[in-house]
Amino acid sequence: MRVSTLSIGSELICGEVIDTNAGHIAELLLGCGLRVQRHVVVGDCEPDIGEALIELAQKNDAVVVTGGLGPTVDDVTALAAAHATGRRLVVNEELKGHLRAFSAKLGDPGGCHPSDKQAMIPAKSAVIPNPTGTACGFHFMHGGCFFFFLPGVPSEMDRMLRETVLPFLSVRVMHKRVVLSAFLNVFGLSEPEVDGLLAGIFSGSHTIQMSICVTFPWIRITLRADADTETAARTSLQEAVELVRERLGDAIFSEGHETIEQAVARLFARRGLTLALAESCTGGLIAKRLTDVPGSSAFFLEGVVTYSNAAKMRLLEVPQDILEVRGAVSSECAAAMATGVRGAAGSDLGLAVTGIAGPDGGTDDKPVGTVFISLAAPDGSWTKRFRFGDNREEIRTLTAWMALDWLRRYLGGIPFSV
Amino acid sequence: MRVSTLSIGSELICGEVIDTNAGHIAELLLGCGLRVQRHVVVGDCEPDIGEALIELAQKNDAVVVTGGLGPTVDDVTALAAAHATGRRLVVNEELKGHLRAFSAKLGDPGGCHPSDKQAMIPAKSAVIPNPTGTACGFHFMHGGCFFFFLPGVPSEMDRMLRETVLPFLSVRVMHKRVVLSAFLNVFGLSEPEVDGLLAGIFSGSHTIQMSICVTFPWIRITLRADADTETAARTSLQEAVELVRERLGDAIFSEGHETIEQAVARLFARRGLTLALAESCTGGLIAKRLTDVPGSSAFFLEGVVTYSNAAKMRLLEVPQDILEVRGAVSSECAAAMATGVRGAAGSDLGLAVTGIAGPDGGTDDKPVGTVFISLAAPDGSWTKRFRFGDNREEIRTLTAWMALDWLRRYLGGIPFSV
Repeated sequence: MRVSTLSIGSELICGEVIDTNAGHIAELLLGCGLRVQRHVVVGDCEPDIGEALIELAQKNDAVVVTGGLGPTVDDVTALAAAHATGRRLVVNEELKGHLRAFSAKLGDPGGCHPSDKQAMIPAKSAVIPNPTGTACGFHFMHGGCFFFFLPGVPSEMDRMLRETVLPFLSVRVMHKRVVLSAFLNVFGLSEPEVDGLLAGIFSGSHTIQMSICVTFPWIRITLRADADTETAARTSLQEAVELVRERLGDAIFSEGHETIEQAVARLFARRGLTLALAESCTGGLIAKRLTDVPGSSAFFLEGVVTYSNAAKMRLLEVPQDILEVRGAVSSECAAAMATGVRGAAGSDLGLAVTGIAGPDGGTDDKPVGTVFISLAAPDGSWTKRFRFGDNREEIRTLTAWMALDWLRRYLGGIPFSV
Repeated sequence: MRVSTLSIGSELICGEVIDTNAGHIAELLLGCGLRVQRHVVVGDCEPDIGEALIELAQKNDAVVVTGGLGPTVDDVTALAAAHATGRRLVVNEELKGHLRAFSAKLGDPGGCHPSDKQAMIPAKSAVIPNPTGTACGFHFMHGGCFFFFLPGVPSEMDRMLRETVLPFLSVRVMHKRVVLSAFLNVFGLSEPEVDGLLAGIFSGSHTIQMSICVTFPWIRITLRADADTETAARTSLQEAVELVRERLGDAIFSEGHETIEQAVARLFARRGLTLALAESCTGGLIAKRLTDVPGSSAFFLEGVVTYSNAAKMRLLEVPQDILEVRGAVSSECAAAMATGVRGAAGSDLGLAVTGIAGPDGGTDDKPVGTVFISLAAPDGSWTKRFRFGDNREEIRTLTAWMALDWLRRYLGGIPFSV
């Protein structure tokens, strides 16, 4: 079965908004054993949409279309679909009811403005319900190709795809193959290092496909098992995951869709320890990322962002002579910040970072990108100097990643090189 | 001139990586008066690439292709382009030299592995130099259509596009039109409110195109002036910007590509004031965003992330009875945090946020999404209760936006409703 996507929106074609729907659809279809062959994007322009629909119909068995189903005059997808396939645009009573119910829920009982347009779909098509928004979808077959039209709002599109489109397609996929995926997430190895460690690992396999994807500054390894049955796919996938685990060891910080901060939060919960943070160059980024995780208040007691020397002395009791003699960006200052914040907060762990994120402030001795990370724990303390490139955003990102990786390694009992 | 893009990469087609190149190319081409009509994405699969190239040649005058020019066996773009257009793949001596020079620079003088493959391009094509990477591009004409092949690495692609492709296309664009763009960025109004305020504003204009794009939680208004000459386009655009400014007033927090944190940093610099932050539910997000701006250390003295009550008392001197009687999420606590952090840091302004980001911790009286923001300044202090939805990420994002908007308004002398 040949499947493609069509994303519609003038904001997409001119680069104002990046289309994330097509990729998301491809991921979900892959889970049903369907590989998407092509993504197409066009603007909210009737002739462009019509042309794309006709071309896609010739080469595909199914096309998932998103966008252009809203209430405003810009949205012309339904009209273009009707014209391109020689249908009339007709008022659908089911949709009219849905829109009325939706308006009523929003406290706008007379809201017939959206109904007029959004209840019009091409003749001989079936409604795809939208439980969370006004824009319902529709589907029809044209020239041997199933067309599914969904709104562009990602959350609505996702739900409608899962609840209507995927079940519909699943029962119609002949010779269905099962494709299962696993993800292993790596930090601390470069792409060539990962390439080298995994070289030839699945070269003899017809079932396993591996891809290595660099998403600065970490690397995602995707394994896909493609087999006739779910059991066969699952067994192959588990063996493949084991093989990769053996080769990459503790450079794998998580599996699946777990972020490094989620992995750290999980380890804090397991160990029952608490944390206080002292950040200079990252300016709150580490605290922000840890508190992205729901429930982080259980282990994260407090954080301080100490840009000024006065704040470092008052909040962290960094001795004045360290600041004067060694400087705010120094191994001694980082260590004093980590023990200082640990002592002040009464936490089990104290983590501190200080560095020069630039663009100004670098010296010959300590160029932009120089960063010190320090961890103070009940069983010792560790401090290390790093050099993280010369771009502000990159330096801050890498510093936060390395600090989170230190926490992961400390909590997981994994050695970290100091 | 009809222009489209083709992005090549298996990681793009299966949704692992989101393609940002196509949109970026469209933006840059628009600056040259060229509107992109269609984006196409296919995987690293020779037949799919070839088919897309042939189809695009039939309907376009120029196609910008990105991706698949790397050294590994996955990368088959050059081969597919050669086959699809009936060319041989030949070794290009200029490219061989480039690759040798590049390897030498990287300290790998014998590095002939990449040269072998990356020096092969379709016959009768011209090289597009890549000053920063190994993968050079190439261009040729086929069936009346100019094809430009660029690597997928965004920074390399961007430079090659600007230095070679845009100048090449610019001189070949007949009846060239000038398209100039302006962006006005709005916070605090809903999409229907903005729609209503701007209704019919440019309905009579043939020169100005306006689009309203919601990028939660703010709205970007794009104005494009399309005229025969640069002067005409510039004049129309300025008039259009003025009209929008009149209608939306101080809901416009910035113009162009300035973020709200950059606008706040600019205002702090202009006013010569300093800031200290006390964050609870945002967990460092506001500090992180302000310190994203280079030079923020000039106004940002310190921030504290006080999740625990102990930290609120010790670091901010929030009285214990406020925490016990009113609670940590209360107007009184927010106000005490703002004055507390201002006093402790000795800053001109103290800003505090406290709230319930969820998923747990909500009560009937203070459901998830309840947030208090407080600003303490030399001329007064302001505190307000908000209700920001029920999703953790959304609540944190909106809280940070509202807090930054309060700073913008205070610093800009604009009233804010309390």
